[in-house]
Parts: sequence; structure tokens; C-alpha cells
Amino acid sequence: MTVELVARMLAGNRVALSKLMTAVESRAPERPAILAAVYPRTGRAHVIGITGPPGAGKSTLTDQVIDRFRRAGRKVGVVAVDPSSPFSGGAVLGDRVRMMRHAADDGVFIRSLSTRGSHGGLSRATKEIAHLLDAFGMDVVLIETVGVGQTELDVMEVAHTTVVVLVPESGDTIQTMKAGITEIADVFVVNKSDREGAERIRRELEAMVELGPRGAGAWRIPTLATVAAEGKGVDELVERIDAHRAWRDARPKDPDAAWAAAAHDIRDLIVERFGACLRGQVDAGLLDRYRDALLAGTTDPYTVALEVLASEDLVARILLCK
Amino acid sequence: MTVELVARMLAGNRVALSKLMTAVESRAPERPAILAAVYPRTGRAHVIGITGPPGAGKSTLTDQVIDRFRRAGRKVGVVAVDPSSPFSGGAVLGDRVRMMRHAADDGVFIRSLSTRGSHGGLSRATKEIAHLLDAFGMDVVLIETVGVGQTELDVMEVAHTTVVVLVPESGDTIQTMKAGITEIADVFVVNKSDREGAERIRRELEAMVELGPRGAGAWRIPTLATVAAEGKGVDELVERIDAHRAWRDARPKDPDAAWAAAAHDIRDLIVERFGACLRGQVDAGLLDRYRDALLAGTTDPYTVALEVLASEDLVARILLCK
Repeated sequence: MTVELVARMLAGNRVALSKLMTAVESRAPERPAILAAVYPRTGRAHVIGITGPPGAGKSTLTDQVIDRFRRAGRKVGVVAVDPSSPFSGGAVLGDRVRMMRHAADDGVFIRSLSTRGSHGGLSRATKEIAHLLDAFGMDVVLIETVGVGQTELDVMEVAHTTVVVLVPESGDTIQTMKAGITEIADVFVVNKSDREGAERIRRELEAMVELGPRGAGAWRIPTLATVAAEGKGVDELVERIDAHRAWRDARPKDPDAAWAAAAHDIRDLIVERFGACLRGQVDAGLLDRYRDALLAGTTDPYTVALEVLASEDLVARILLCK
Repeated sequence: MTVELVARMLAGNRVALSKLMTAVESRAPERPAILAAVYPRTGRAHVIGITGPPGAGKSTLTDQVIDRFRRAGRKVGVVAVDPSSPFSGGAVLGDRVRMMRHAADDGVFIRSLSTRGSHGGLSRATKEIAHLLDAFGMDVVLIETVGVGQTELDVMEVAHTTVVVLVPESGDTIQTMKAGITEIADVFVVNKSDREGAERIRRELEAMVELGPRGAGAWRIPTLATVAAEGKGVDELVERIDAHRAWRDARPKDPDAAWAAAAHDIRDLIVERFGACLRGQVDAGLLDRYRDALLAGTTDPYTVALEVLASEDLVARILLCK
């Protein structure tokens, strides 16, 4: 079933791609097998992250960037990450609707990912869905995050090139961004730059960039001005994104870093798989005999956990997880 | 060491409390032992969550609520949760500074918690720090979250009573809040209610509340107006918070729900402890022999993970984790 689905996906079947994404996102048992099967076909796509504060026009910009890549004949996968804030549903939806005009284009595949149900696993799911889009043959995979926060920083680790989008009103934001954001940014964009204060914020960003790494071989973060709603500045943005990729590809590879990243992935896969099994084993009656004492208040969850960890029962269950 | 620290904390030592919080937050090995030791002293404090969109004045309101509880002679613990958005550092800091005027008061203990370093574990850490404040003898534990998002919803699961703070400008927000927020709200507050549109938003909230559960025994979510900066409406807020607690305490207890919650905690403690050990075991050389093949591209992380999971090596390592 998995093998057949992967074969159909690799042959270009969009329904198969969609089904595999669902399996991966929901951490179905066949997930490692799926990812192993598509792995030989990955490594070709350029993964581009687009992030920034709410209201910066990221979806509009993403929509425009898709358009430019398509005109250049490049196939585009999009992962639209939505941390489903309870306080910001509507605006996001509206912006995303615009982007969906590309959904009818066979050279575009858009997938939305939400935090709900993938507790803490959003960056993992994003990475794996990007792998699937890569294997499917997309030349470019765009990852757009809507919210702001640690989740978004984690998600951006997946990207080869990260575009941080700000607006003229982001002055206060820049003062407080500090290290985090310059560390992840490869390109700064001041969107809605027809508004007052655009040039000032661009200069502030440039001053910040000046403090970063310099010298021969270092990437110099460009600070671009765009008006995404009118398509202004988007060509230059795409050009700088491509330049960053070229710079990245020309750097000597660091085998230790590559190994560290792979070992990290392997370790997480093992621990996660094991944890899921152990969770099931614990739920399968292992705790029942503590129920009365717990409800009576003569013991507590932490004491029980320590007892179970020390028990022989657990060994038997653990071996079942092997 | 742990035993002594817990004894000193329970005797009222603030330095000991602070050290225990650090141990718990950083998931130190002695964490379950600490929590088990303080458990018998927990269950007395009223845990109150204060959440809402950025700019709603939550910190100012929290500051005022602390003040009212202190005047009533109640001891107050505060967990200030900061999802450390890379895009919103400054404002938060300023508001929090105001709250810190209470830090010199022996009847108040304020602890900040940040997402950084506690990947996905913010709601766990919040809950456990609330336990420590409870055991320390605080009558009330306030949990204030600054950002918005799934993280905040998760954090609020810890609270007995959740106050959702909005402002007159939150009209659009309310249209898009939908189920999520009414599900967690026990009290709605329209803060900065001296601004235009306050009454309109209050009516909208009331209309929303009308759609919720009703009838004898159901809690009717009040919608209050405050001007936190002037202390207006805060007395009534505290009164409604207390009323919610009284309503909650009067409800018949559901042993199945209590057991489910305890079993969930136990399971997570076991799986987490095991995962941490297994992670260490995998890092201790278990993957070294795959390095060359991985770097040469003749295998991939997913295939290696499946191989390791099927290997006898892993069993030996797993048993070391017992």
C-alpha cells in the first residue's frame, strides 16, 4: 500500500502526494518507511522560508513569489504553516484564499499545516512535507509561517534561505528583535514600502546587518523594498533568493555538520517511535492498580511514575516495543 | 540535597523555592522526586489564567489583580509566561517591569517562564511551577501569558479559572475567535473600556456567551468592563473570579476525569524520562557505524532509524534505561 502510494506519487499523482502528506503529518506507523522510500529523490529543491510579524503581507508576497517562479517555468510547492492562534483566524484565511488561485496550476502544490493536533511537532512535519514536495519534483518549496514565536523560528530551521518580511510600522519591532531574527534572516524585505517610514526602517536594518559577519565569503544580507500588492520589488527579491542559493551551494560542505544533522534526525525518529509504543503500553492497563490510591490521595502521579519506572512490569512492556 | 531544598522551601524559604523552580523547568533528573515531595502540600491554591491578544493590557490588569488579592491578605504566586516571540520583546518587558513592584512584597512571588529551552514543554513547566507555588503556600496562583497561539491555549489548561482579556479594538478578533476561546474563557474582560466601542464589544461577547451552555448549574460567563490603568472594574473582576471558584468547588467531582488526568501525567512522566535516557544512549556511539554510508548518500536517516529500531544493540541500550 505504502510502496504503491509512493510509486504513484513519484510518477506525479497529486492525490497520492496528498495522502502521503496526511500519513506523515499524523505520524502514521508507515511514516519512516514513506520517508525512507522518497529519500533518494530528495535534495534537489530549494527550500525558502518566508516569515515576519502579523500584518506584514507575507501571504501576498508569497503569492507574488509563486507567480515569478512559475513564469520562470519552475515548479513550486508551498507549505503554509498556521499556528492556529485563537486570536487571529480571519485575516489569515482571507490572505490564503488569494494564494489559492495557484491551486489549479499543475506546477503548484499548496499544503496547509496547523499546530492543532501536531503538538510541538510542527517543525518536524514541515520538514517532512517539504521532503515530499522535493521528491515530487518541485524546484522550489516555499514555507510561509503566519504567526510569530518560537514555533516559527523552529520551522525556519528547515529552510535553505529565509526571508524576513517587515513593514514601515515595524520600527519598534526592530529595536527589540535582537539576535534571534538576524541569525535566521538571509534576506530582509520591507514590504508596503510605499508607506511613510519605509526608507528609515530599511536604513535601520542595514545598520543592523553591518554588525553581522563580514569579509570574504560571508553572505551579505540584502535589505529590499517591496509593495507586494502591486508586485513591486518582487523580481529583485526572487533574484536575491537565487543568489543566496548560489552562494550556499558554492560553500565548502562541512561533513561534521551534515553528520550531526542526520544523527539528530535518526535519534529523534528512534525516540519518537519508541515513545509512541511505550505510551500505548502504559495505557494498556499498566497503571490501573494505582487508580484507587491516586483517587484517595494516598499517592501522587510523580510517585507512581517513579514506581513504574523501577518496576519489572515495565521491562516486559518495553521489550514489546522493540 | 533535594530533600533539604524541599524542606527549606516548605518552611518558607524563597531561595529554595527559586532553586526548585529552576530544577523543574530545566527537567533536572531530580524533577519527579521534587514534585512527589511537594505533592501532599498542593491542591489548596486557586490557579487563575489571564490571557488575550497582545496590547490588551494583561500585565497591567494582572498587576491590579495582585494588588486586590494582597489587600485581602491573600498570598499570590505569579507565573509570567513569555513565548519569546522574536518579534515582540520590548513591550512585554516594559509591562512586566510594572508588575515587579510587587516583587519586594513577601506575600508575592513572581516567576517568568520562557519558551526558549523548554521546547514544547511550556504548559508542563507552567503546571509544575504552579504546583510549587501552591505547595509554598500561595492562596492564589496567577498565570499570565503574553503571546497568542496554541501554546497559550495549552498553558491555560492548567488554570481553574481563565480570564480572557480583550479591548474595544478587538472587534475583528471576536468575529474570528470562534469556539476555541469561549471554550477556555470563564470570565471575559473588556479592558481599556473608556475607549470608543467598548459597549458594543461587550454586547457582542454577551451574545456569544448566550450561545454557550445554559440552564441550572451551568456557569454563566460574565463580561466585565475594566480600565486597568486606573484600577476601574478590578474589584468586580476579582469578585467574579472568586464566584467562579465557588461554583467550581460546588460541582460534584468526576472520578473518571480525575483519574484520566492523573494517568495522563504519569504516562508523560514515564515516557519523557525514558525518552531522555534513550536519547543519551543513542548519542553514546550507537549511530557511529552509519556515518560513512550516510555521508556517502548510500543510506538515509529514515532507513537507519528503522535498522536501529530492529537491532539487538538497541535492546541492550533500552535495558540500561530501566
